[in-house]
Amino acid sequence: MELIRAFSILFFSWFLLASAERSNYIVHMDKSLMPKAFSSHHYWYSSTLEAIKSVGLTSLDAHNPSPKLVYTYDHAFHGFSAVMSKDELEVLKKSPGFLTAYPDGIVTPDTTHTYKFLSLNTATGIWPASEYGKDVIIGVVDSGIWPESPSFKDDGMTEIPSRWKGICQAGEEFNSSLCNKKLIGARYFNQGVREANPGVTITLNSARDDSGHGTHVASTAAGNYVDGVSFFGYAPGTARGVAPRARLAAYKVLWREGSSESDALAGIDQAVADGVDILSISLSYRRFGLYEDPIAIAAFGATEKGILVSTSAGNRGPNFATLYKGIPWAVVVASGTVDRWFSGTLTLGNGLSITGWSLFPARATVRNLPLTYNETLSACNSTELLSEAPENGIIVCKSDETRYYLFSLWHYLSRTNIRAAIIISEDTAILQSDTFSYPGVVITPKDGKDVINYASNSADPQASIEFQKTTVGTEPRPAPAVSETSSRGPARSYPGILKPDVMAPGVLVLAANNPYTIGTSIVNNIFLTSDYTLLSGTSMACPHISGIAALLKAAHPDWSPAAIKSAMMTTANPLDNTQKPIKDMGYSYQDATPLGIGAGQVDPNRALDPGLIYDATPLDYVNLVCAMNLTREITQSIIRSSYNCSNPSSDLNYPSFIALYDAEEKRTLSHKFHRTVTNVGNGAATYKVQVRRPLNSTITVSPETLVFQKKYEKQSYSLTIRYRKLNRSVVNHGSLTWVEENGRHTVRSPIVVSQRVSED
Amino acid sequence: MELIRAFSILFFSWFLLASAERSNYIVHMDKSLMPKAFSSHHYWYSSTLEAIKSVGLTSLDAHNPSPKLVYTYDHAFHGFSAVMSKDELEVLKKSPGFLTAYPDGIVTPDTTHTYKFLSLNTATGIWPASEYGKDVIIGVVDSGIWPESPSFKDDGMTEIPSRWKGICQAGEEFNSSLCNKKLIGARYFNQGVREANPGVTITLNSARDDSGHGTHVASTAAGNYVDGVSFFGYAPGTARGVAPRARLAAYKVLWREGSSESDALAGIDQAVADGVDILSISLSYRRFGLYEDPIAIAAFGATEKGILVSTSAGNRGPNFATLYKGIPWAVVVASGTVDRWFSGTLTLGNGLSITGWSLFPARATVRNLPLTYNETLSACNSTELLSEAPENGIIVCKSDETRYYLFSLWHYLSRTNIRAAIIISEDTAILQSDTFSYPGVVITPKDGKDVINYASNSADPQASIEFQKTTVGTEPRPAPAVSETSSRGPARSYPGILKPDVMAPGVLVLAANNPYTIGTSIVNNIFLTSDYTLLSGTSMACPHISGIAALLKAAHPDWSPAAIKSAMMTTANPLDNTQKPIKDMGYSYQDATPLGIGAGQVDPNRALDPGLIYDATPLDYVNLVCAMNLTREITQSIIRSSYNCSNPSSDLNYPSFIALYDAEEKRTLSHKFHRTVTNVGNGAATYKVQVRRPLNSTITVSPETLVFQKKYEKQSYSLTIRYRKLNRSVVNHGSLTWVEENGRHTVRSPIVVSQRVSED
Repeated sequence: MELIRAFSILFFSWFLLASAERSNYIVHMDKSLMPKAFSSHHYWYSSTLEAIKSVGLTSLDAHNPSPKLVYTYDHAFHGFSAVMSKDELEVLKKSPGFLTAYPDGIVTPDTTHTYKFLSLNTATGIWPASEYGKDVIIGVVDSGIWPESPSFKDDGMTEIPSRWKGICQAGEEFNSSLCNKKLIGARYFNQGVREANPGVTITLNSARDDSGHGTHVASTAAGNYVDGVSFFGYAPGTARGVAPRARLAAYKVLWREGSSESDALAGIDQAVADGVDILSISLSYRRFGLYEDPIAIAAFGATEKGILVSTSAGNRGPNFATLYKGIPWAVVVASGTVDRWFSGTLTLGNGLSITGWSLFPARATVRNLPLTYNETLSACNSTELLSEAPENGIIVCKSDETRYYLFSLWHYLSRTNIRAAIIISEDTAILQSDTFSYPGVVITPKDGKDVINYASNSADPQASIEFQKTTVGTEPRPAPAVSETSSRGPARSYPGILKPDVMAPGVLVLAANNPYTIGTSIVNNIFLTSDYTLLSGTSMACPHISGIAALLKAAHPDWSPAAIKSAMMTTANPLDNTQKPIKDMGYSYQDATPLGIGAGQVDPNRALDPGLIYDATPLDYVNLVCAMNLTREITQSIIRSSYNCSNPSSDLNYPSFIALYDAEEKRTLSHKFHRTVTNVGNGAATYKVQVRRPLNSTITVSPETLVFQKKYEKQSYSLTIRYRKLNRSVVNHGSLTWVEENGRHTVRSPIVVSQRVSED
Repeated sequence: MELIRAFSILFFSWFLLASAERSNYIVHMDKSLMPKAFSSHHYWYSSTLEAIKSVGLTSLDAHNPSPKLVYTYDHAFHGFSAVMSKDELEVLKKSPGFLTAYPDGIVTPDTTHTYKFLSLNTATGIWPASEYGKDVIIGVVDSGIWPESPSFKDDGMTEIPSRWKGICQAGEEFNSSLCNKKLIGARYFNQGVREANPGVTITLNSARDDSGHGTHVASTAAGNYVDGVSFFGYAPGTARGVAPRARLAAYKVLWREGSSESDALAGIDQAVADGVDILSISLSYRRFGLYEDPIAIAAFGATEKGILVSTSAGNRGPNFATLYKGIPWAVVVASGTVDRWFSGTLTLGNGLSITGWSLFPARATVRNLPLTYNETLSACNSTELLSEAPENGIIVCKSDETRYYLFSLWHYLSRTNIRAAIIISEDTAILQSDTFSYPGVVITPKDGKDVINYASNSADPQASIEFQKTTVGTEPRPAPAVSETSSRGPARSYPGILKPDVMAPGVLVLAANNPYTIGTSIVNNIFLTSDYTLLSGTSMACPHISGIAALLKAAHPDWSPAAIKSAMMTTANPLDNTQKPIKDMGYSYQDATPLGIGAGQVDPNRALDPGLIYDATPLDYVNLVCAMNLTREITQSIIRSSYNCSNPSSDLNYPSFIALYDAEEKRTLSHKFHRTVTNVGNGAATYKVQVRRPLNSTITVSPETLVFQKKYEKQSYSLTIRYRKLNRSVVNHGSLTWVEENGRHTVRSPIVVSQRVSED
């Protein structure tokens, strides 16, 4: 009896607790159903929320707080976010106009010579043609901004256009006079984080960037010219963004205390309302369905308003299907290496000079010091053992361990009296490591042989190392190569469109920084900082595309987001700087596939004049969403009430092709695509098709010649893939290229045949 | 018997050995006795040396090599240096024309906002008046030169005057095209070092500077303008020498393998022959008598030819009579501090901001970290104990130990996970230490109290430190103060003239460097280098005077070396930048005396227009030497045969006064000086005397008014010091100032009464 009673009390408590457990939900509403009585969506949403207060289980507990509105959204999509219990949510679901709701999720950030690597130049091409992106506004939804960075000075910028509706929101350590003609807006959103962490104190409650991530991204996209910049002596020179005359507006949604989709959504929604032209979103989240991906949904609303959304592919590579953002209307950006190498020059006493990888962050002096190679010590994994090595010398370390090796190595070495280390490693990640807290160079086993040979056979082996060297070119590795961590398609949230779309520089990109952030370290406890820093990740690739989109927008103000994306994709380069196929760092430098690089490395000057464009309207995206077999409510939460599903079609007019097969499918598959291209060249043009078929496939294109009489004329064609499935699951790829007869334009699309992503 | 025989063999062997022991000797010759048969001094000297080969003990041993000529000298003085045995020297002494000889000695080196501290400016004063030292040639006798330093670019320099006879001597890693219109000459001299170290290999057998010392000195005197210079972020700005349009010629006489007076002499001799206007000699040696000081003797020859010789006082302070160079004809330069402070700004969590001393050579980031003061740990002298301190925090260290404390402190701390240290110390040397191999600031006990109080009483004490701060002004210490190590008078080699003459900046002077030299370190085994470095010592003060002398020479081409020296001395400032007497770092910041600072801190703009000049001719120096009671030969080795001793006088017309008494002397002494001043002001002038008498003295000046009718007119006066000696040996000092009636010029001379140096 007592037991039963105790149990029932326990159960009832649990029940109360469960029902009372409150979360922040993102709620999509059908605004067309808003009663005329409400003067704005805001009143409707709060009234809807108020209404659920008086019903349901909430009344059982007087201490139970009411549902609490966090944000209302109206620009990128319709709805709100609110803190409520599951029970309250159930009541809410019965409210008129309710479409869908899901819990607020966690957003995480992914992470200049690149302009040169992209062939941007002042003499010809897109820079002068676009006046360097003049007057285009890029909204950066990220960790905020360090407004005092010289990259955000407004020297050379004209007056802010009157169409701009944004503000410079004052906050902690950020007053509203910190904006200027370059940084034209700054806002911050943390209601979501506050709700998720009740009682939390926000450390820096303003648009000021406390991580450096947002500052880096913004300056990469549109930083002004800044002379005399370097990362501890590496990559020295003048910094500038891809679109140095574009404007920036910062929306801080990432916080030291956490980050939530609801805040990111609020930032995007506000950026759309403020009037940005390009949205740069270097954020990742893990949503398996497009319908529950609020950023995908908000991006739809932005795209509908003519705003191009550029977003990072994510850093979950190199495995198959590690990319979540299958957002058909956004540009999803993969990250590639840059043709720049940071090195220490090792010179042996016999005159042999070897370029090793190094980012030791100071001008260490290592001149004509004794060189020791001792097989017993060569693992360099014990300070005790290393103390047997000659003092004030250079030691050769050799290890089969991989990327985490360097951290411990520096630790051991820094407690000895050894002056520098030569690390022999074939691990490609070590060969690009950005942590050198001790004077050292990493060299390849091939060069290592020469060093060991000299150290072992010379009577008095000596060596010198010079640090802070920066070289550019095809040595020691061709560039770009897709970075190991760049997320790979097919996309989890919607695999029917090939993602990523395109690749841009994202490895060791130099850009502005929060000047207090740790940039690197020396030994184990000395942390250094720099006004400009090297960061890696698709977060760094994304703003390159945002900047290039701004240049294209400035040069072609009438182009739709789809046209801009098409121009970047069909002119992208599948070859590296040795004119060989782009390689994949994640797969031992084998040839990359479009699941890693999309259409290839973006080529902004070619994108300026792509010849043909694969355009798409918001209605095309609606028809695509309608074909996804979602519920009416979910469909409507994406496409909103202004559209209907009268013409569903998954055959979106897209500048790439992906045919998917299930593991259980029959041995051959056939997939037919229809495409329409618009002639954006000057006047009449004739294009002939060129196909590189994927292995085990046949490709049929009809017609094989497209004749345009004039500019803006459209022509359609179909492409059919017939594929013989093998037992092994492999990805095969090829391309379709429309080549203008006079050779002036080539319009290339990747073709991928891939196994479908298995749900996991 | 056997025993006796053995002993006699032993004795005979020793005798042979002793007689055969060979050294390099510097030999002074009376060139007036050179037989007419010799076409040059060189043949005469070699023939003299040849002659001693066939006589004496050398013939006993067939294996005994001949005396070997190392250098012949002919410009600064007459003679040669040669390797020979003592026996051979004895024979040589009987040769016609022989004056004196002594073994070659060892030379050691002593070790830019300063232009601003010296009030040099482009608007008024000596810079524009001298056209920045245009066309004056400064010969730097030192460790050579790093010709590629941007300080030696010749932008803005005119063509080399045809009077220049120097060359750009090719050598190891130095080709003859490395000179230009700024660096007009480079030569090297190491025969002396080679002879002293038979079989030695000279590491860098050329004028290339392998230490950085000569490069630093040369660029301090006459470096060109270089933008964007700093020492690891400290003292950032534009570097320039004191005389940025003067020319430089480098004479390398200091070697990694050693250095000898014979080489230094060869450099000076050649510089005189090449046609330099100013000789800058930042070298020290330890010669007790002027007559055995070859550099003093060579400086005589240079001065005779109108070349001003500026040389460092030495770094043997702070004790009485630690200065050796009592060279009456040279300017002997003391070293003072600069009004620039390198700091880390410590900010406590309670908002209190404290400026501490720091030169941590990187942009360490120490932001809002926990602050620990724990009395048990506060000595910070054990890594084991320190590991008990919270990780990633800042620790307060407090120690009564002095200057060497920091070295071990950094060592202990760098092996912990502590991020930074606050060191409380009242040791003035620690407060200016230039070695910060770990992030830390040194603060005074007064500020330390606030830190300890906050750290002990706050619930969550935190602090931040920002490094790489540079401040200028009177805080925390007035400047200049004479540096602790600057050598103090009276001079050992000749105490009868007050030395040092004048003080110039010599503490933490920023100037060009050999870019491979170690500039600083992080932890115990990471050594860093910099193109510009901070060095301290009278070596750094000397080239300031060389540069100012070049400016004066350019502005007043007709002034003798004595006139230039007089102008610098009588206008020097005995007050610091708080208008109080200059303090002495070596004596707890008590008032300095002229034995430390000479006439005071040089004031180049005032030196341009001194009003009156104490001039002296070579004959005056001859008369002084003649009064020194030296042998005829020694006297002649200094003054050479062109002079005679018809008018000996120790009352040199010098712009300072020193009266010496012996410890055993009677209770009162009286010393009368005669002086003649030349009016170099424009036209008629009347000066009245002002005297600040030394304690326990009376000073009588006659006449007390000097009336000049016109420029260049001379007037004489006498000054008598009567001094009552006390039992304690103390130094008392005062001054004599001639003040022009209209107040335009004041002509000040220090007066010192001091106990005589006891021989030790």
